[in-house]
Amino acid sequence: MRATVIHAPFDVRLEELPDPRIEGPGDAVVKVVASCICGSDLWPYRGDPPVKQPRPIGHEFVGIVQEVGFDVRTVKPGDFVVAPFVVSDGTCPHCLAGYQTACQNLVGYGQGKADGGQGEYVKLPYADGTLVATPEVPDDALVPSLLTLSDVMGTGWHAARSARVKAGDTVVVVGDGAVGLCGVLAASRMGAERVVALSRHEPRQKLAKEFGATDIISERGDAAKDAVLELTKGVGADAVLECVGTAQSMTTAFDVARPGATVGFVGVPHGVEVPISTMFRNNIGLAGGAAPCRAYLPALMADVLSGAIDPGKVFDSELPLADVAEGYAAMHERRAIKVLLRP
Amino acid sequence: MRATVIHAPFDVRLEELPDPRIEGPGDAVVKVVASCICGSDLWPYRGDPPVKQPRPIGHEFVGIVQEVGFDVRTVKPGDFVVAPFVVSDGTCPHCLAGYQTACQNLVGYGQGKADGGQGEYVKLPYADGTLVATPEVPDDALVPSLLTLSDVMGTGWHAARSARVKAGDTVVVVGDGAVGLCGVLAASRMGAERVVALSRHEPRQKLAKEFGATDIISERGDAAKDAVLELTKGVGADAVLECVGTAQSMTTAFDVARPGATVGFVGVPHGVEVPISTMFRNNIGLAGGAAPCRAYLPALMADVLSGAIDPGKVFDSELPLADVAEGYAAMHERRAIKVLLRP
Repeated sequence: MRATVIHAPFDVRLEELPDPRIEGPGDAVVKVVASCICGSDLWPYRGDPPVKQPRPIGHEFVGIVQEVGFDVRTVKPGDFVVAPFVVSDGTCPHCLAGYQTACQNLVGYGQGKADGGQGEYVKLPYADGTLVATPEVPDDALVPSLLTLSDVMGTGWHAARSARVKAGDTVVVVGDGAVGLCGVLAASRMGAERVVALSRHEPRQKLAKEFGATDIISERGDAAKDAVLELTKGVGADAVLECVGTAQSMTTAFDVARPGATVGFVGVPHGVEVPISTMFRNNIGLAGGAAPCRAYLPALMADVLSGAIDPGKVFDSELPLADVAEGYAAMHERRAIKVLLRP
Repeated sequence: MRATVIHAPFDVRLEELPDPRIEGPGDAVVKVVASCICGSDLWPYRGDPPVKQPRPIGHEFVGIVQEVGFDVRTVKPGDFVVAPFVVSDGTCPHCLAGYQTACQNLVGYGQGKADGGQGEYVKLPYADGTLVATPEVPDDALVPSLLTLSDVMGTGWHAARSARVKAGDTVVVVGDGAVGLCGVLAASRMGAERVVALSRHEPRQKLAKEFGATDIISERGDAAKDAVLELTKGVGADAVLECVGTAQSMTTAFDVARPGATVGFVGVPHGVEVPISTMFRNNIGLAGGAAPCRAYLPALMADVLSGAIDPGKVFDSELPLADVAEGYAAMHERRAIKVLLRP
């Protein structure tokens, strides 16, 4: 099969790899219908952390089950499935508590036990604990929205849930990447009265509004803080979604939070220092982390299939898998919000 | 009147100060029945931060209202009242949201607008937003428990509430000072099935058990982590109360938290660095801060008056106000858990 391998910074290639096969009783092999490139894939693409040796890459995909091990109960050949961005056993105490990203037997894609996601096929273990099937094979038009449930929509949802968004709230979303935009959609779906998106990019502002943003703030830093305080009569936001993971974005998130608010964070932290004294003085909480997309999949899948949400709009570019290198370049250069790949 | 003044490290004195009088329409003057010394009073007592000039000290007291301004509606002369550890207006957005410690017109005791708490009388503004009266003047035996609602019991409650303790939980409490012990009581009252107190001091272990601790761990650091993991079959605690505020106590709190848990922190942070990568990886939240004791006062007062809780047991020493200096020394040297002072 053909699959994407990262060799070095700015060097991803589609290569011929051995076809996968069932090895264990809980395995499944999925024929990929669509996969995509994640903001977190751009970190190794940019050399942080350095790529030590070539390895398969990609962790977001949907597809058709080809074959399963004899112990797999919940998916069968022919099923259309969504794969969350990590493999989880579904039976350990952390999975049972709904934190599958902390699974005691966590498996990452492309690291040996499961194939990389940006390929023609993916073999993975723990199929029952990981994959979620749609009731029937969906219309192709729904594929992009279903694909977002692998990661970005589940992650945006996790940001909003971690921030404890509730009906009537004023919510600020820091970050206008695919996850931030999905955070806007999640907050809106949860009934927030006012959803304030921080964005300086016109196409992203437009999509934020389609997803339910009521206000756009294009300022950054102290000016963004002032703008939020003006919008909220000096009070601050009831909930804040931090969807970037940098020192600046985290500072802004705490700056705009009202006392008693929670900052829901889902951006992988890079150089972040938590302002513990501000947290203490103003009782601002911090919660979130690697999103347990598996936990949210059944409900979000129902929302996509019913048309209640259409997160697939975050894909503003679709390429054949053969052009995966161009997809990475487009996202790195911010020419695309998010790139969908079709094998 | 006589009131306590801190002059320099290890130098607190009872001195003659002018009798307070009503100055504004929202003021009250309270004749102190009992006050006490707080763990946070020990920071300036030890010179951190340095005492720049002599100032009145103390912020926990109960007493009888002597006189009120013409605009005060909720308390009247003759009422027995509990004073939370800060003065709040009760009308700003943050007070209305239940975060009175972030009041837009916050007043601290002993800083000019309100007298220090360790004296014979205390004048304060915003009486309606601050003081809570008992239905009738309580029996003297209830005074210690009511006095804890000024600070330590409300703060222990805040730790448990911030940590989102729920019925059936396994809760670890880091810190065996008066706040930590009240945290044990709070977690138990909230229905925690297992309350694990970290304590190396026999009298405090005993009190923790009286307050509902089911397990005592006397180890520290990695050994404490191992002990909690052994108790929880490798899973970790559902909720953790961090009631100290040091780097070591915060590290232990995160070490024993299971994925998805929240660390409720109420110790004023000193040199704490938040382990953001652990938080992200394991979805461990951090919430808490300066406790809005005013918000919890009505419900906790009812619990004290009904006998449902008896947090006054944290006072293991009672001294006349004249011996306030000995009270500070006893707490500093850990000869006493908490000292009650009677004018």
